[in-house]
Amino acid sequence: MRILGIDPGTGILGFGVIDVVPGGRATLIDGGVIRTPIKHPDAERLLIIYDELKQVIKELKPEVMAVEKLFFAQNVTTAMTVAQARGVVLLLGMKHKMAIFEYTPLQIKQALTGYGRAEKKQMQEMVRVVLGLKTTPEPDDCADALAAAICHSMQRQPGA
Amino acid sequence: MRILGIDPGTGILGFGVIDVVPGGRATLIDGGVIRTPIKHPDAERLLIIYDELKQVIKELKPEVMAVEKLFFAQNVTTAMTVAQARGVVLLLGMKHKMAIFEYTPLQIKQALTGYGRAEKKQMQEMVRVVLGLKTTPEPDDCADALAAAICHSMQRQPGA
Repeated sequence: MRILGIDPGTGILGFGVIDVVPGGRATLIDGGVIRTPIKHPDAERLLIIYDELKQVIKELKPEVMAVEKLFFAQNVTTAMTVAQARGVVLLLGMKHKMAIFEYTPLQIKQALTGYGRAEKKQMQEMVRVVLGLKTTPEPDDCADALAAAICHSMQRQPGA
Repeated sequence: MRILGIDPGTGILGFGVIDVVPGGRATLIDGGVIRTPIKHPDAERLLIIYDELKQVIKELKPEVMAVEKLFFAQNVTTAMTVAQARGVVLLLGMKHKMAIFEYTPLQIKQALTGYGRAEKKQMQEMVRVVLGLKTTPEPDDCADALAAAICHSMQRQPGA
């Protein structure tokens, strides 16, 4: 199963693709971020996200999308623009007939570390270890996206 | 100039298309709402909005999009889902090379009635009068979308 994890955002959107086989370790396929120019109108930035993420999906053909659910930050305006980007991401998943799953930061932290209030560093270290990498994926947004994908892979694993 | 006004939402999205000629009265071309099943996942509802609104754009070929900017309601969860739908709407506008303008409810009320706190009934009556209709466009979401389109037509008119 190939999973595309997404950490939504307008300025910077993280993505990470992993492969999971039953009983096997998760493998990193690709990961990165999509950045959009901060001074451009929202609509233009959404189109950049759409076009670039579509490329990733077309190339890597993930079957499942795991999207981080919005954390209601203190800054409502930021939360709104993140939600707009999230709408575009969900649309892309639907258009490519992916199965879509959403996880809160709490669920992702709990799945990876067993602790809902785990620190960012600890989470990134878990992502590194689970994927058997030498270094932590950079930047944070990419690591967060991979964490969402890993979270999904853990949800789906039968209690062997 | 053909303007597509949008009142974004996930459960019900209003749209209205008007034609404006310099010095002439605005003409109603089409208006309506896109409804999505309440129990379906967000992603599915966004795809319905995308597909149906795309049809409207393809058929009527508006050049300009006027979208109501989010009013920060007390219900943050609702605001988030509206923002997701808004992301899809803005994306559609970009994909069809439309000029996109955003107006707050305050701006729309002010443009139509000269008063930022105008009541809904008064607004709907103004939409009816401006477009020379016998009855108020129904439902509310359609009237709100037309109000956004009219607001834009007024912004653009030179002070003759």
